[in-house]
Amino acid sequence: MTMTDLMRRLGQINDLEAAASLLSWEQETFMPPEAAAGRGLQLTTLSGLAHELLADDQTGQLLAAAQPEDDTQAAVVRVARRDYDKATKLPTAFVEERTRVQNEAHHAWLEARANSDFAAFAPYLDRLMTLARRQADLSGYDEHPYDALLDDYEPGMRASHVKAVFADLRDRTLPLLTRIRAAGDAADYSVLTRPFPHGAQKAFAWQVAGEAFGLRDQFARQDESAHPFQSSFSRSDIRITTRVEDYWPACCFGTWHETGHAMYERGVAERWARTPVSSGTSLGVHESQSRMFENLLGRSRPFWERYFPQLQAVAPEVTEGLDAETLYRAVNRVNPSLIRVEADEVTYNFHVMLRFELELALLEGSLTVAELPDAWNAKMQEYLGLTPPDDARGVLQDIHWSAGLIGYFPTYTLGNLLSVQLLEAARRSPEIAAATDRADYGPLRDWLADQVHQHGRSLTPDELTVQATGQPLTADPYVAYLHRKYEDIYSLK
Amino acid sequence: MTMTDLMRRLGQINDLEAAASLLSWEQETFMPPEAAAGRGLQLTTLSGLAHELLADDQTGQLLAAAQPEDDTQAAVVRVARRDYDKATKLPTAFVEERTRVQNEAHHAWLEARANSDFAAFAPYLDRLMTLARRQADLSGYDEHPYDALLDDYEPGMRASHVKAVFADLRDRTLPLLTRIRAAGDAADYSVLTRPFPHGAQKAFAWQVAGEAFGLRDQFARQDESAHPFQSSFSRSDIRITTRVEDYWPACCFGTWHETGHAMYERGVAERWARTPVSSGTSLGVHESQSRMFENLLGRSRPFWERYFPQLQAVAPEVTEGLDAETLYRAVNRVNPSLIRVEADEVTYNFHVMLRFELELALLEGSLTVAELPDAWNAKMQEYLGLTPPDDARGVLQDIHWSAGLIGYFPTYTLGNLLSVQLLEAARRSPEIAAATDRADYGPLRDWLADQVHQHGRSLTPDELTVQATGQPLTADPYVAYLHRKYEDIYSLK
Repeated sequence: MTMTDLMRRLGQINDLEAAASLLSWEQETFMPPEAAAGRGLQLTTLSGLAHELLADDQTGQLLAAAQPEDDTQAAVVRVARRDYDKATKLPTAFVEERTRVQNEAHHAWLEARANSDFAAFAPYLDRLMTLARRQADLSGYDEHPYDALLDDYEPGMRASHVKAVFADLRDRTLPLLTRIRAAGDAADYSVLTRPFPHGAQKAFAWQVAGEAFGLRDQFARQDESAHPFQSSFSRSDIRITTRVEDYWPACCFGTWHETGHAMYERGVAERWARTPVSSGTSLGVHESQSRMFENLLGRSRPFWERYFPQLQAVAPEVTEGLDAETLYRAVNRVNPSLIRVEADEVTYNFHVMLRFELELALLEGSLTVAELPDAWNAKMQEYLGLTPPDDARGVLQDIHWSAGLIGYFPTYTLGNLLSVQLLEAARRSPEIAAATDRADYGPLRDWLADQVHQHGRSLTPDELTVQATGQPLTADPYVAYLHRKYEDIYSLK
Repeated sequence: MTMTDLMRRLGQINDLEAAASLLSWEQETFMPPEAAAGRGLQLTTLSGLAHELLADDQTGQLLAAAQPEDDTQAAVVRVARRDYDKATKLPTAFVEERTRVQNEAHHAWLEARANSDFAAFAPYLDRLMTLARRQADLSGYDEHPYDALLDDYEPGMRASHVKAVFADLRDRTLPLLTRIRAAGDAADYSVLTRPFPHGAQKAFAWQVAGEAFGLRDQFARQDESAHPFQSSFSRSDIRITTRVEDYWPACCFGTWHETGHAMYERGVAERWARTPVSSGTSLGVHESQSRMFENLLGRSRPFWERYFPQLQAVAPEVTEGLDAETLYRAVNRVNPSLIRVEADEVTYNFHVMLRFELELALLEGSLTVAELPDAWNAKMQEYLGLTPPDDARGVLQDIHWSAGLIGYFPTYTLGNLLSVQLLEAARRSPEIAAATDRADYGPLRDWLADQVHQHGRSLTPDELTVQATGQPLTADPYVAYLHRKYEDIYSLK
């Protein structure tokens, strides 16, 4: 009886969260502009009720008394207890203050970025860092306060592990980047801005997302939004958004990136439906799927050998005078830039390392908020040889800190590393390797569904990584991948 | 303090209902097909939580202790008490049984209609009528059990009033219909199915909805669905849907119909936001607004004199060889038909009267469910001179009964009657009459906003009718309108 009551309550919480996700998705895609204020209140109510139901004493009693009857129920109870503990560790007064400061900080950041005026944002970031320290103390940690924050996005991951992996990655990819920069261009990059009608961009990207990666109209749809994202309201109700611009790879690779997220959510086993197990286990594992589809597959030579004819058919003006090989080289341009979201596979992680190192220093107090812009610019120079002309294109470029998301950035690089580690593990099967090499991703997708997707949150990221690849997260496969791929493209040997 | 608590709770209930409406709207417009089952559960959770919050003892205590500080709060408390009383009068066990029977009946009806097999639906309708009688007993009534059902859709209206008004309407419009049928065609109706590209239909209908009736992108949007409807999630977040078909007036007049509903929701005063006062006061008053825009304005001679050039511009193939007058006559074709939703202004109300009379007889027990198809067909012959070739085009055509909506049908005709009664009242202002006669609806819309829209549910339908028109609902203005308009179109004098 209590298991039934518990499952019923978790189902309601899941429904409220799904409804909130749908309202958020619709806010970014279709909502009329004047509806914003009312929508905000509706979202507050839905999230608030979901949180109240989770953190309620009765939920605690149901969890304490729960007698799972099988592995499925055991995982639900395990994950629900983790969520309940997290939800009850932070006092309501603290959560409300954090929400208020985040709202104020977000508005201050929007204005500060528009005016490239870091000083206007600094007091808010200072308050957010104080709140982050308090949150770490309230949540508790063994080694480092950063661990308590990181745990919200990458359960079980520790700053010490991230530090070690990032240092290894940095030391072994900085020399590669230097060699690439010395090599000059590997293709004529003007092809990336040839005229490509917006509707045709979307149609091509969506068609390939279905054919290559399995995203289908029956359970998913694509719409446009200012910033691409993926959202799902059940495993049969998945949305991705894209942005169409003159730089046409943005739409294609953005779509395939979100398709990776979507197929993860799609693949969670039906038996976890309407439970807290029914989503990806961490941001890092999620990113491993999006990056695999976007980069490891979508930016691979076999992919373009296979899909070049389709691109020719829908956009002859783009492909005129080109072949698959040239396009492959063009979409793999390595080009140090100021902006993280525009970065390529080689430079992207430096953007992340920089942020991680600054977050750590701020949290530890070895860096003050006032010193942050200079520290940012110094690291940009050290890693990418660039200095931002203003803070809008430097320390103010990302939304994350203004939204209180501290401890979030490392998951981007953890995902990049894991994407290759997983792909290498899958390729130990000769059948998967052969199919992948001819851009037939069915066997790989079956492996991912089995090893990654189906488990939802029932495995922690570390459990999943060890079980699927035989070892914890490491930079080795990613470093080897970058060398293999870019030494070839830039003829470095 | 208790007023604040009460307002907070009513706000949450309103937010949950708005979220449910958004999920329902999205289900009909964009949702991928496989998402249906999960969406159903989410809707059940949202509606269930909204109902739990409303019917909760604490809500009762807050209402009992409420000390409104102004007229706005007084209206909120008054309407919330009415909702609370309704919500608590029906025992949970009864509501659950009703929901279950309605679900079963709906599926049985879908199949019965597909097979035109009334006998397969009869046992379900029988159970629904039994439940309707029990609901009337539980809810209580002074005169007639039908009043208790009607009150859910048209608060305060009684069957005796409907009976009297409908009898008057029938006796005075049946002779008019006979004269029209004897007169023959008033135009060449083939214009109504001339080729009109679907995208252009939608664009024209939406453009006019904005220009003539004030529906704007800032707070509203239009999408397609199988059955047109209006839905709103706040007064700044309104949706209408339309259906595009080869019979092009369906899209135009359907859009303007839903625009009437939309502008009513838009016009409710901002001070009622997130309270139970923040919507139209009844289905009948709502229908008066949709019918006014669709028929009294959209099917008027001045309207087509004004908008014919715009139609010419977007659809020259439709208007070729035509003028505004011919089009005006064509879109006002009177043509008795089997199907309610396809009926014109003269015959529509007979479809409604027939259903009302049968509902009354079923509820009183003077008619059995088994006798219903014959009774239906006899009345169709009596009113419209037609006999359905099968029950799918007869007694099984509407979704309402299968969804347990008994007492709903009369509101369509009450709305028709009220639409003319309101328009006549507005036209007592020479300025409004003159502007309306040149299809400038600004002054009329201001009057409607003031007399109808802004009040939301703070006035009952009867209070609103008396206040705006000087008398309770009567058939007189509608009967006079039909005679004036159709004696002219069909040259009956």
